[in-house]
Amino acid sequence: MKRTVFFVSESTGITAETLGNSLLSQFEDVDFERVYTPYVNTAETARELVRLFDGIYAQDGQPPIVLGTMLNEEVRAVLQQGACIYVELYETFVGPLSEILGVAPSRKTGQSHAISRESSYARRIDAINFAVANDDGVRPENFGRADLILTGVSRSGKTPTCLYLATHFGLYAANYPLTEEDFERDDLPEPLRLNSQKLFGLTIDAERLHQIRVERRPGGSYASLDRCRSELRQAQRMFTRLGIPVLDTTSHSIEEISSRIRLALKYRTG
Amino acid sequence: MKRTVFFVSESTGITAETLGNSLLSQFEDVDFERVYTPYVNTAETARELVRLFDGIYAQDGQPPIVLGTMLNEEVRAVLQQGACIYVELYETFVGPLSEILGVAPSRKTGQSHAISRESSYARRIDAINFAVANDDGVRPENFGRADLILTGVSRSGKTPTCLYLATHFGLYAANYPLTEEDFERDDLPEPLRLNSQKLFGLTIDAERLHQIRVERRPGGSYASLDRCRSELRQAQRMFTRLGIPVLDTTSHSIEEISSRIRLALKYRTG
Repeated sequence: MKRTVFFVSESTGITAETLGNSLLSQFEDVDFERVYTPYVNTAETARELVRLFDGIYAQDGQPPIVLGTMLNEEVRAVLQQGACIYVELYETFVGPLSEILGVAPSRKTGQSHAISRESSYARRIDAINFAVANDDGVRPENFGRADLILTGVSRSGKTPTCLYLATHFGLYAANYPLTEEDFERDDLPEPLRLNSQKLFGLTIDAERLHQIRVERRPGGSYASLDRCRSELRQAQRMFTRLGIPVLDTTSHSIEEISSRIRLALKYRTG
Repeated sequence: MKRTVFFVSESTGITAETLGNSLLSQFEDVDFERVYTPYVNTAETARELVRLFDGIYAQDGQPPIVLGTMLNEEVRAVLQQGACIYVELYETFVGPLSEILGVAPSRKTGQSHAISRESSYARRIDAINFAVANDDGVRPENFGRADLILTGVSRSGKTPTCLYLATHFGLYAANYPLTEEDFERDDLPEPLRLNSQKLFGLTIDAERLHQIRVERRPGGSYASLDRCRSELRQAQRMFTRLGIPVLDTTSHSIEEISSRIRLALKYRTG
């Protein structure tokens, strides 16, 4: 069973997509066809969209569902009059919140993803640049400036997690790959030891790591299952000995791991 | 006027934060104190939270507002009985959507940010690795694999935008910094010309660029306002001549620019 869903917004559409996709995940058995249409901010653009609805209705045998975050009543009304089932995700809460706060809403569109809160926006941009510049342990002298440092064996998920933490939360995230050298020394290099309170270890299932490494660099000892097992075991031993909290990227997404790290950092720093 | 707002979720809290912060942006004059509490998934954790509410009520002179995405009724009920004003952002739509679809919701928590849709998750991780590996034009041989290539002068916002496109949309985004060499040749290097349909130009206000460069590398000609103006003018001339669409990072956030790029790509590829 196929169902077409439009995510419609006056601005970037990030709110509509995030909440909308989260809601659709409640209905796993439905085969959703997702259509993202940001920047629908004039009645004319809305009318263009409405023209699509009829074709989709005929094709699917059911009207498309529109998940909207539309503050502009005129533009919203155009959509609502089209051949669709319109669900408003945003306006629903603006009135009640306004009453709770005793303040009228500004009704300005796209505020939350605009460059509005200057300092936090600038911090996020800096954090992304920091994460890219400090990927793969290339500048240990910068560990002091990091909010956190991820460590783990090659391809355990450090880079994507660092970038998510930076992009989403504005955290300065560096990472350091554990290699044979660290295992032979059975200790971390000094710049890391000096920042041990910032460390989080990443681990991953050996079979999964083997798969990932084979895709990246097939053949050779780097990708062999034995090598993966041995590295992961040595890394785990080091994490345990040094009291580094460990997160598993096999079963947890970068969003889940990042949320847990942010929570842990909050409690660490008080 | 200060008001404490809790973002409470059973899982990562990403949905609660995204919608919640977007809603709060409607009330610019209120000084919100934001508290993020993901992973509230037992009645006990909820009770810990409720213990905080009384103190905040006393301190603010008003009960905290709780913006929740709580599917578990038992845990939600614990929060609702606390000294707070509870607004449920998620459940509100689950029932209506279930009726529209004629399908019961799974009521599983945290599905949308879990590793559920395997292939799109893997693509997003790959895209982040690709963006980091192809930052700053270091591997022109990879431009063929890119979904898009951002170009512009140094510090015009290429890196953060690429990483946002990768992290959020799973797009393979490379970037290429325009330098004196390109301006002297008055053309793009061959690997870029071969992929000209993937190009987007970034520009920025000269004063703003000057500021950013001064912070990064003060003194010297690199950061001088004259140099910034001259580079931006030459870049603009090249964009115009080659028909490269241009986006301005001065007034538009990486979210806004990324949404526009995604939209443009959709229309380009049909």
